Amino acid sequence: MPVEVMYDDIKIGDTSSISKTITESDVYTFAGLCGDNNPVHVNEEFAKNSLFKTRIAHGFLCGSLLSAIFGTQLPGINTIYLSQEMNFKAPVKFGDTITATAEVLEKDDKKKNIRFKTTLTNQDGTVVIDGFALVKKYEKK
Amino acid sequence: MPVEVMYDDIKIGDTSSISKTITESDVYTFAGLCGDNNPVHVNEEFAKNSLFKTRIAHGFLCGSLLSAIFGTQLPGINTIYLSQEMNFKAPVKFGDTITATAEVLEKDDKKKNIRFKTTLTNQDGTVVIDGFALVKKYEKK
Amino acid sequence: MPVEVMYDDIKIGDTSSISKTITESDVYTFAGLCGDNNPVHVNEEFAKNSLFKTRIAHGFLCGSLLSAIFGTQLPGINTIYLSQEMNFKAPVKFGDTITATAEVLEKDDKKKNIRFKTTLTNQDGTVVIDGFALVKKYEKK
Amino acid sequence: MPVEVMYDDIKIGDTSSISKTITESDVYTFAGLCGDNNPVHVNEEFAKNSLFKTRIAHGFLCGSLLSAIFGTQLPGINTIYLSQEMNFKAPVKFGDTITATAEVLEKDDKKKNIRFKTTLTNQDGTVVIDGFALVKKYEKK
Repeated sequence: MPVEVMYDDIKIGDTSSISKTITESDVYTFAGLCGDNNPVHVNEEFAKNSLFKTRIAHGFLCGSLLSAIFGTQLPGINTIYLSQEMNFKAPVKFGDTITATAEVLEKDDKKKNIRFKTTLTNQDGTVVIDGFALVKKYEKK
Repeated sequence: MPVEVMYDDIKIGDTSSISKTITESDVYTFAGLCGDNNPVHVNEEFAKNSLFKTRIAHGFLCGSLLSAIFGTQLPGINTIYLSQEMNFKAPVKFGDTITATAEVLEKDDKKKNIRFKTTLTNQDGTVVIDGFALVKKYEKK
Repeated sequence: MPVEVMYDDIKIGDTSSISKTITESDVYTFAGLCGDNNPVHVNEEFAKNSLFKTRIAHGFLCGSLLSAIFGTQLPGINTIYLSQEMNFKAPVKFGDTITATAEVLEKDDKKKNIRFKTTLTNQDGTVVIDGFALVKKYEKK
Repeated sequence: MPVEVMYDDIKIGDTSSISKTITESDVYTFAGLCGDNNPVHVNEEFAKNSLFKTRIAHGFLCGSLLSAIFGTQLPGINTIYLSQEMNFKAPVKFGDTITATAEVLEKDDKKKNIRFKTTLTNQDGTVVIDGFALVKKYEKK
């Protein structure tokens, strides 16, 4: 089972990260799941003449690493995802290694809600996505 | 090729929708892609004692239908996804049929940016995710 | 490695079959691969009001069992697929068990081409696809 | 929802196309779905000594782009696939970008059946598959 970090053990400034090399296989599987077959993702002939010069990953695919942080690391079990804001800042190419990081910004003790700053960078340190998340830590009394 | 709707042909109030029955297969494939193996998604024994009484889909998986709208329908080809905000309002169970809808709220003619209201509902009309998106329509001069 | 049946060992009337229960997971994965997200395949709310009353499998997915026969059983290794004709006769529902059968109809000894009658039936014996295939058995001199 | 083109709006000579770069990921996923694990598809050591000098895609996988045309573009919703004939003319290598095109050849107004010429080409314009399809446009009176 993934970890469960209790609400009271989570401090402002705590961070958690997950990294993954995003592959052609990931992008194709994701295109199939969500139906986003835009040629910039699945047509190299089109993509090589596009703004990015080659096929790129879906922003949503990269952003979903945040779901893994909240669901398996911080807080982990018994997390309820309330909201996510993503600003897509730079393209992710096949083979890029993306590191997603969530940092605790604020806690609402009454609701047990936690607000995070969320940042995804590539292997060069370029920010590819930033934004904020709100999650609730569910704890039976 | 997916369609391409030109910036000037997009009007305030235009909408585009995609529907899909979200299955166990989708959720498991998505868990594998993003690594969010929280037991509420992939452990029925855990999930039946949880708040939702059964396994539920990842919010990010459902939200990704919005990527398909922007990438293949409105505007389609030559869309650059700038930002997405998602508020997760209600759980999605395996077998729920989700309809994602994007409605044009505002246009910024100088930047060719388009702001959308984004709403996902289930087969009963319950809103499961709402929020806003910003996309740029890329058009060579 | 799959088997290799030599051209001279293949007789008129020889048959080879493969069976598979076609699942929701198969259909969803195939929809993702080929991009055929017609609602009759992936939207149960739509499908229950359609001609077939529930979601059905893609004909191409079922037909692809024939590729497995030629590629792994008869003739197996060193088969070159030249043509396939498929007539879609009846719908395949999730959970149906399909048996694909290829029967040798004719041989062209000069070209080492083999013509097959190809038939797919469901668990009730209903023919869901029929047609013909032509394959070449490649054999170095 | 995918588009729905009504029978009366479909004219002889109308065409619709879909393009995709066929990847190793596609071929392996498809091999898993249909069971065609012929070494020419999944064994590079075998394939490099074969007629084609490297692994190639399944003809059925490439041909399935036609299913996406009929199911999501022309006619789209409420299409019933009646038959497909495919002649496999040239190999498709991993990384080839395939464009599938369907062109309306004939219409049978009484049955609302539409006959298409179907052609798949690679990025060099080489025809890899050709053939014919017959689909019915289902329209409630």
